[in-house]
Amino acid sequence: MAPNFVRSTVRAMEGYTPGEQPGVSARVVKLNTNENPFPPSPKVIAAIHDIEGETLRRYPNPNADAFREAAARLHSVTPDMIIAGNGSDDILTIVTRTFVPAGGVIAHPEPTYSLYPVLAQLQDARSVAVPWSENYSLPIEALVASKANAIYLANPNAPTGTMIPSEKVAELAAAFAGLLLIDEAYVDFADFNCLDLVETYANVVVSRSLSKAYSLAGLRFGYAVAQPQVIFEMMKAKDSYNTDAISVLAATAAIEDQAYARWTWENIRNERKKLAAELTQIGWTVQPSQANFLWVTPPHGRGLDAYNGLKHQGILVRHWDKPGLSDKIRITVGQSHENNALIAGVRALAMSEKAA
Amino acid sequence: MAPNFVRSTVRAMEGYTPGEQPGVSARVVKLNTNENPFPPSPKVIAAIHDIEGETLRRYPNPNADAFREAAARLHSVTPDMIIAGNGSDDILTIVTRTFVPAGGVIAHPEPTYSLYPVLAQLQDARSVAVPWSENYSLPIEALVASKANAIYLANPNAPTGTMIPSEKVAELAAAFAGLLLIDEAYVDFADFNCLDLVETYANVVVSRSLSKAYSLAGLRFGYAVAQPQVIFEMMKAKDSYNTDAISVLAATAAIEDQAYARWTWENIRNERKKLAAELTQIGWTVQPSQANFLWVTPPHGRGLDAYNGLKHQGILVRHWDKPGLSDKIRITVGQSHENNALIAGVRALAMSEKAA
Repeated sequence: MAPNFVRSTVRAMEGYTPGEQPGVSARVVKLNTNENPFPPSPKVIAAIHDIEGETLRRYPNPNADAFREAAARLHSVTPDMIIAGNGSDDILTIVTRTFVPAGGVIAHPEPTYSLYPVLAQLQDARSVAVPWSENYSLPIEALVASKANAIYLANPNAPTGTMIPSEKVAELAAAFAGLLLIDEAYVDFADFNCLDLVETYANVVVSRSLSKAYSLAGLRFGYAVAQPQVIFEMMKAKDSYNTDAISVLAATAAIEDQAYARWTWENIRNERKKLAAELTQIGWTVQPSQANFLWVTPPHGRGLDAYNGLKHQGILVRHWDKPGLSDKIRITVGQSHENNALIAGVRALAMSEKAA
Repeated sequence: MAPNFVRSTVRAMEGYTPGEQPGVSARVVKLNTNENPFPPSPKVIAAIHDIEGETLRRYPNPNADAFREAAARLHSVTPDMIIAGNGSDDILTIVTRTFVPAGGVIAHPEPTYSLYPVLAQLQDARSVAVPWSENYSLPIEALVASKANAIYLANPNAPTGTMIPSEKVAELAAAFAGLLLIDEAYVDFADFNCLDLVETYANVVVSRSLSKAYSLAGLRFGYAVAQPQVIFEMMKAKDSYNTDAISVLAATAAIEDQAYARWTWENIRNERKKLAAELTQIGWTVQPSQANFLWVTPPHGRGLDAYNGLKHQGILVRHWDKPGLSDKIRITVGQSHENNALIAGVRALAMSEKAA
């Protein structure tokens, strides 16, 4: 039993369950946690191999200013419109602590990133899950009616891979008095983004992650873009030194090598298209995706069977045993040979089903 | 003005002010932020230079298990008694969010680490500053009488460098029903520590930092030791992936090279003794220290003058312009040549005062 000096809120929590992570040497085709299948830019590795003792001995710049300057150049904004975090999960925590009081409300469309309700709970706030409208369109009225302190919108959304057009997101920002977080963790695999909304709407924060787009899930680096007076407040809610000297150098090198990153995005988009076509041809239902994963329904909605059947063949995908999700699986788009292995695995499943 | 969608608590905050950090190439003697004057172990640098792309591409182990196992071996506890954090500031945030509810209370002796009241404020909690008893002894009764949810005790304390004997800390743990955090950021420079209390008292969490003891302020790595059921609850309050793949490898290499670390601690303790003796001889009042810094009073309590006079000579020390602190400065113990430069600077100040 939890000791009685633990906060009752925390005692009641289960916490967030991350996806399975087999050892680096495990011989599996790992398509379950949306990592970029390509290694990070060689310039990132070079930056890390150049690290000297003196850089580690000293406290780092508390606000990751070198990264903020590079990100500002990339997005044509000013550095005071950028805040860096220890992964975009840190950014989400900072957003929650800056804009959501105890007893407050976070609203989000459902299904979405399962961390949002956990963040609300930890803050003693309530989370209001608003079902997506038809075809995963944005339930603007219901979100606004929630009278939340903040709305968290993953765009592209996980696990669906669907995306709300910028004009619709702008409508929500205009209609809503609270803070609108647009979580763009997957946006670099999409056809557009909502970064421009930051210029018009003071209540919009756009968050980005280097985990997927820059192949740096192991580094923990994310950032947010918002108007300077908003970033100023967020800075108060972060840990004093929330990013480290190595990650700032590596993250800066990563976003400065746009050519490399764009090459991976283009490859993944092509593979996504191919994989979706092949799965459709086999008879699986594929939700059109703007992210680096596919949200697919196996025949007869046998999500768990597909997950287990693939795992048995050494292929890891993601399955949630929850109402509205359990009939589907989420498949990360891998490199060509991994996607081919997945397709072969799916075909084998179909064969064994026919035989049964 | 802060936008009205910002939490009122955050709007009212000033935030924590870190110490001055001149550029790495600035030609100053930097004795203001308590860094270890020696570089980290060569084994740490080697671990970082061995980092491969695949390690960065994937999500890291969410709980830094490799580090937990190494720390458990070091302290002769089990890995489930260890939690790792993105610096010990992250550990302090986790402790606050695990044990202190909104509307709750954090008590701490005063003066101490200036981050504690900031952590309380951000959690909508009240901080109760209890003055140290005579000669910086522990005000046990007053701390218990605060009826706090948690007591934060820096031991050794900053900025005073003083330390409470383990038996007295045990008395407090036994008399107090809430959570007692013993912040041992500086303990490796001391003659003893309070880690054993964790075995007896379920309400004790001991936090450690790699910033000073292992020359890794730039890496952001800290950890806490407590009973398994306490660590279990703290795990729920941390970010899902709060440490990164590189820092876990580097931190593990650091604590596994005890011979190197101990050599730096021994050197610093010897230098501390020498520096204290020399400052005393010049006529400054030196508080006996168990940390890697000295808390000293210049003649006539001219703390600000000493700070400015030394800065003018390219020597950075720390000064707080606050009641009870402003007559003193805090001097980090450096390498021998840095401490000699400080002594020369102090002598020059004394000369110019005589001349004036």
